[in-house]
Amino acid sequence: MKIIDIIEKKKHGHALNEEEIKYFIDGVTKGTIEDYQISSLLMAIYFRGMNTDETVYLTKYMAYSGEVLNLEDISNDITDKHSTGGVGDKITLMFLPIIASAGLYAAKLSGRGLGHTGGTIDKLESIPGFKTDLSIEEFKTKVKEHKTAIAAQTMSLAPADGKLYALRDVTSTVDIIPLIASSVVSKKIASGANHIILDVKYGSGAFIKTPEDAEKLSKIMVETGKRLGRNISAVISSMQEPLGRAIGNSVEIQEVIEFLKGNMESDLKEVTYMLCSQAFEKSGKILNKEEAYKYIDELIQSGKALEKFKEIIKSQSGDERIINDYSLLPQAKIKYEVKTDKTGFVSNIDALKVAKACKNLGAGREKKTDTIDYSAGIYLTKKTQDEVHSGDTIAILYTNKETALNEAEELVKSAFEITNTKPQAKSLIYKVIN
Amino acid sequence: MKIIDIIEKKKHGHALNEEEIKYFIDGVTKGTIEDYQISSLLMAIYFRGMNTDETVYLTKYMAYSGEVLNLEDISNDITDKHSTGGVGDKITLMFLPIIASAGLYAAKLSGRGLGHTGGTIDKLESIPGFKTDLSIEEFKTKVKEHKTAIAAQTMSLAPADGKLYALRDVTSTVDIIPLIASSVVSKKIASGANHIILDVKYGSGAFIKTPEDAEKLSKIMVETGKRLGRNISAVISSMQEPLGRAIGNSVEIQEVIEFLKGNMESDLKEVTYMLCSQAFEKSGKILNKEEAYKYIDELIQSGKALEKFKEIIKSQSGDERIINDYSLLPQAKIKYEVKTDKTGFVSNIDALKVAKACKNLGAGREKKTDTIDYSAGIYLTKKTQDEVHSGDTIAILYTNKETALNEAEELVKSAFEITNTKPQAKSLIYKVIN
Repeated sequence: MKIIDIIEKKKHGHALNEEEIKYFIDGVTKGTIEDYQISSLLMAIYFRGMNTDETVYLTKYMAYSGEVLNLEDISNDITDKHSTGGVGDKITLMFLPIIASAGLYAAKLSGRGLGHTGGTIDKLESIPGFKTDLSIEEFKTKVKEHKTAIAAQTMSLAPADGKLYALRDVTSTVDIIPLIASSVVSKKIASGANHIILDVKYGSGAFIKTPEDAEKLSKIMVETGKRLGRNISAVISSMQEPLGRAIGNSVEIQEVIEFLKGNMESDLKEVTYMLCSQAFEKSGKILNKEEAYKYIDELIQSGKALEKFKEIIKSQSGDERIINDYSLLPQAKIKYEVKTDKTGFVSNIDALKVAKACKNLGAGREKKTDTIDYSAGIYLTKKTQDEVHSGDTIAILYTNKETALNEAEELVKSAFEITNTKPQAKSLIYKVIN
Repeated sequence: MKIIDIIEKKKHGHALNEEEIKYFIDGVTKGTIEDYQISSLLMAIYFRGMNTDETVYLTKYMAYSGEVLNLEDISNDITDKHSTGGVGDKITLMFLPIIASAGLYAAKLSGRGLGHTGGTIDKLESIPGFKTDLSIEEFKTKVKEHKTAIAAQTMSLAPADGKLYALRDVTSTVDIIPLIASSVVSKKIASGANHIILDVKYGSGAFIKTPEDAEKLSKIMVETGKRLGRNISAVISSMQEPLGRAIGNSVEIQEVIEFLKGNMESDLKEVTYMLCSQAFEKSGKILNKEEAYKYIDELIQSGKALEKFKEIIKSQSGDERIINDYSLLPQAKIKYEVKTDKTGFVSNIDALKVAKACKNLGAGREKKTDTIDYSAGIYLTKKTQDEVHSGDTIAILYTNKETALNEAEELVKSAFEITNTKPQAKSLIYKVIN
């Protein structure tokens, strides 16, 4: 078999067979196929696409290109969750304690991604002492003992995906649905859980811009996961504006704790409850959505979910006193109020602009070696549908970089759309794909 | 400027501007753009194409990516010729002596290509002593003195093209019309002549398969050459079956000499005369095709063209006695007659199959370092329209590799199509683009 023939075949619009895809992924993993041939094939895939069979083969060989976690000695009923990423997306941190406090196993490995704001691992690391760098054995022991644990993905899961992703990033071949699908699902397969809940976002703050593309992606991910033996579903929701009010790291931890205390933003609640109810359904615990929602209400009101979050923090060496004392979290020197000069109703808050402002303030990283300022972030004092008057504070900026304030303020101001009439309330969730 | 933005732009179907193409070619030449980004852009160009402006910019910056020959101190009226390549294509070796014996300057640099049979340089090197490895000064001195010279392209003309071509070859991005056009025309621009005659071939023995594609390619090459200040035309002809009867190296030299002695195969004559008449027209010497053909007849009949070929051989240290004594050319140990078991009329001879057989016999090279057996080759004793009877010899194989005979014989036999009725004579020339 020769890679040039595989490129040629895809270039002319033919589907690759299992042997060809295995040969390709083996070559990527072992480094026996040149990068310039890989990137050429990736661009051909951009134009020609891949059918379901091809996507399944690609996912399978990427998943098995390295270590695959075996969690069966803990349980055959373990849930994993993955979000395609959004601004202010702290849902994993509510999802895990809620379903674990309901008695389900939830094992979560998380990549330390690049982005405008930190990833879930960064958010947790803003808690003093919190350790995410667990060995596989430590991770499994904690899942067994506490029903849940969350660790940084340091082991080499799906290494072919890592190599392909690095190349896609510099060759303009990121936005290819079958490649996104196989990247997400291969890592979830390698992570070992048998129930997989996907949180798929679209909109200005997500890398997928339209609900149609999100649906295409979700369908192929769910189909691929199923064909590889996983119990999987995808919840598609809008990421037009930031989720909740807090965007950053320690500010998001505070919002998570408030949520678990029962002070929930409606958008966070909508998506979190739906994802948790999907987990209950997959595990067979509660099949009916209304019952699941009532049960989650109980887990919150009884304090059980909050208690589980405290348990996770303690189990991973974090300072659990932060639950009741936010001053123990990193504090920014500067708190700056952004005021509007308009009067009317907030009709939209552009998520991408808020994210960019957040990065300017120090909350994200561009290169893997960049350090994050855990205290930096933004708190939106006004959200869509709120009435505002000229002079009202619409957001608070947290930073240690005074020089970053001007640009961040401008970005946040321009992110707010203000209209004369109150906009209608909209549901965030577009569809659930099972 | 960033290459990723250029790839993204082309991927989305937008035309690149002059600055972007300059940046790309500079990066290719200096090695500052990674091969995997170049190949990704090339594949995007396969799918999105390039308009005339883009092709002109690409050609211009490739031509000027290295040395550009200055022939103006010899004359402002120098002709160059280029063939896109075919099986049995020895036309350069008739073209140069004919137009030079008519008093035109003709300067020809030729690449030492890969292929089923040798290139023009290899064919010449089958003449004992013939030297093609000339310095620029030697080349120019010979052109000045003898009106014509032919040298191997050893100097680094259009180095960006060389680099791009090497990458295209291994990434399935060879068959892209604007890239083929810019590759051909950039080298011709860098070679310094102001009149350019292109011999564009299509069919089973050419890398362009249809007359429509050949016309597209010709139009864009002629337009590009004109916009870069050259006097250029393209003759499109069929390469469905080998040109002439000889395919190989020394066997083709014999056929060239016979042609110049007046023993012309009709297909060779048709294409050679047309290309020469285009050269006469470009230089303003003879504008009328009928007059040009009559004049070429005279150059042949008077022996002037043959005399010029002899002069070229002598000037480049070759043994000019071969003109009258073919036994001085390399001789193969084995001469094997291929016989047909059919009766009827030859209706086609598949050029690609004959070429492959020729390579098996030792006449071509796969890698640059392979050596060519100059004596290996094929002579077609039957051509299209000829009547054959079962048992007739249809071709003679020349080789020193006895083990290669069986496969070559099968290939040649299967190349011949025999029908019951005599096929109509067809003109090879499809169109001339001016």
